[in-house]
Amino acid sequence: VSARTETGPGLEAGLLEALRALATDPAALGLADDCARLDWPLGLQLIATHDMLAEGRHFTPDCPPADIGWKLVAVNLSDLAASGARPVALLMGAGIGDDRSLDWARALVAGVGQAVARFGVPLIGGDTIRSGPATVLSLTALGSVPQGRALLRGGARAGDDLWLSGDIGAAGLGLRVALGGAAADAGAAALLKRYRRPVPRLALGLALRGLAHAAMDVSDGLYLDAARLAEASGLAVRIERAAIPLSAEVQASGVPTDQLAAMGDDYELLFTAAPARRAEVLAASAAAQTPVARIGLLEAGRGLLVDGAAPERLGYQHR
Amino acid sequence: VSARTETGPGLEAGLLEALRALATDPAALGLADDCARLDWPLGLQLIATHDMLAEGRHFTPDCPPADIGWKLVAVNLSDLAASGARPVALLMGAGIGDDRSLDWARALVAGVGQAVARFGVPLIGGDTIRSGPATVLSLTALGSVPQGRALLRGGARAGDDLWLSGDIGAAGLGLRVALGGAAADAGAAALLKRYRRPVPRLALGLALRGLAHAAMDVSDGLYLDAARLAEASGLAVRIERAAIPLSAEVQASGVPTDQLAAMGDDYELLFTAAPARRAEVLAASAAAQTPVARIGLLEAGRGLLVDGAAPERLGYQHR
Repeated sequence: VSARTETGPGLEAGLLEALRALATDPAALGLADDCARLDWPLGLQLIATHDMLAEGRHFTPDCPPADIGWKLVAVNLSDLAASGARPVALLMGAGIGDDRSLDWARALVAGVGQAVARFGVPLIGGDTIRSGPATVLSLTALGSVPQGRALLRGGARAGDDLWLSGDIGAAGLGLRVALGGAAADAGAAALLKRYRRPVPRLALGLALRGLAHAAMDVSDGLYLDAARLAEASGLAVRIERAAIPLSAEVQASGVPTDQLAAMGDDYELLFTAAPARRAEVLAASAAAQTPVARIGLLEAGRGLLVDGAAPERLGYQHR
Repeated sequence: VSARTETGPGLEAGLLEALRALATDPAALGLADDCARLDWPLGLQLIATHDMLAEGRHFTPDCPPADIGWKLVAVNLSDLAASGARPVALLMGAGIGDDRSLDWARALVAGVGQAVARFGVPLIGGDTIRSGPATVLSLTALGSVPQGRALLRGGARAGDDLWLSGDIGAAGLGLRVALGGAAADAGAAALLKRYRRPVPRLALGLALRGLAHAAMDVSDGLYLDAARLAEASGLAVRIERAAIPLSAEVQASGVPTDQLAAMGDDYELLFTAAPARRAEVLAASAAAQTPVARIGLLEAGRGLLVDGAAPERLGYQHR
């Protein structure tokens, strides 16, 4: 934590206290110094990822702050999961909007704390600032993998099966709920939770080391991310629409699968493995208590085909 | 770099290209994956720090973007320097304000590139987003130290000398220039540069390993940070006003030393060492080509005294 946060009344000091209560790992040095100090396990590679979340962009201004904190941790851990990495430590940047109260910021940190506790990864450092009109958050997640065992996006081979964990579309429909486009019944609440409280597929990522040829997390839409995985691997990808797993709530929505597969925020793992290893993939799925579905295959060529045709829209396109 | 940045026209895609041009280290994996992968040197501890910079708070909206990029890197490396760490890698979060052009954002990344080249530390990952009305930047700097050799803020001993690198106040006066409070002559330009292009004291930090008992960087004002170092060490600190080093330009400003010592953004190293090791400190200073001055001492007790009295104002107080 920066020296910037350590004095004065008001938000930064108060928020630092909240962070200190979380940062109990010895590496955090009690957030008393500007740096954290971490013993690195011998011979393991370091996997590092850094994502930001911005108000109005990645969460609505009325989003419960604890959900924002949770999601900040979860989306970064999802990147570690896709690498087959074991989470080691987090550093957080809390840029709190000028009009937010200390209580609001504390609730956000409490959500970070819930995720930290749930996923067993210590917060070891960070920074707290007033960020202007909008809240802007950053997080660095550090993880470890045995030498050369990280899963990469570009490792797929022609003939590989394409697999997906869990199901898709629920978070995208949850975003619609958040934006006020759907009734607030029990089903809507469940979808909203999928949008606001994603669960990174850490156990599955670990179980896929040495088994998956390529992996990534689905954050911008299944079709778009599948196309990216194929492109990174220098291959084409075919998906069978009927094989794409949808939850009961999502099926009940009546939204066409192609629309669901072009929504973001699923945070499922998309990965490839040799067809000869299907039984091992299913065993890894069982061991990780995470369902997986075989939704397609990789082959020589370029591009994405769904039931033999290019889909109209791939996914979330950023500015 | 997040998958979020990889498609679509416009800022995020263009900015990702600019980041890719910088991220040439193998650990960056060409920014093709969401994670970077780094071989960690055997037996070294990992030092990690994460600071944010926000428009209107840490830089003025009219600040040249390359200077913002430079400062983002420099302030984080300054934290590593104060730990005696060798920089290993950087991850950057670029939250670019909605009304900023791609050219502006590219210039900011170019400033990051200048710092990366100057300090020899690779950029291995990050994220690019539109952040709302204000630009908000985050950076994680990873460094290494031999086991147990990190410098800490709380390690000072009673009787230690208090030392300061370089000189103070120039950056604070440079901020006044940036805010339009001073004439734009050559002297003003030099002060402005001290504010916008701080140089982390990396070589000195390395040279102080095993020699300094405590260290931190001066970011919020010499008096405030000296008080923090003393408090973290459970000691009192005395400073001799006349021993505080000031540059010729700063002396010419006529601003009283107590005001200069309560200004922020110096990014000098403040450290303590045993009086018996003064010659070694001066040798380290010479080896690092970084001037140091002995400005006071640590003793039993609490608080900060300057020429025997408590100063009226300590430093920059945050909201």
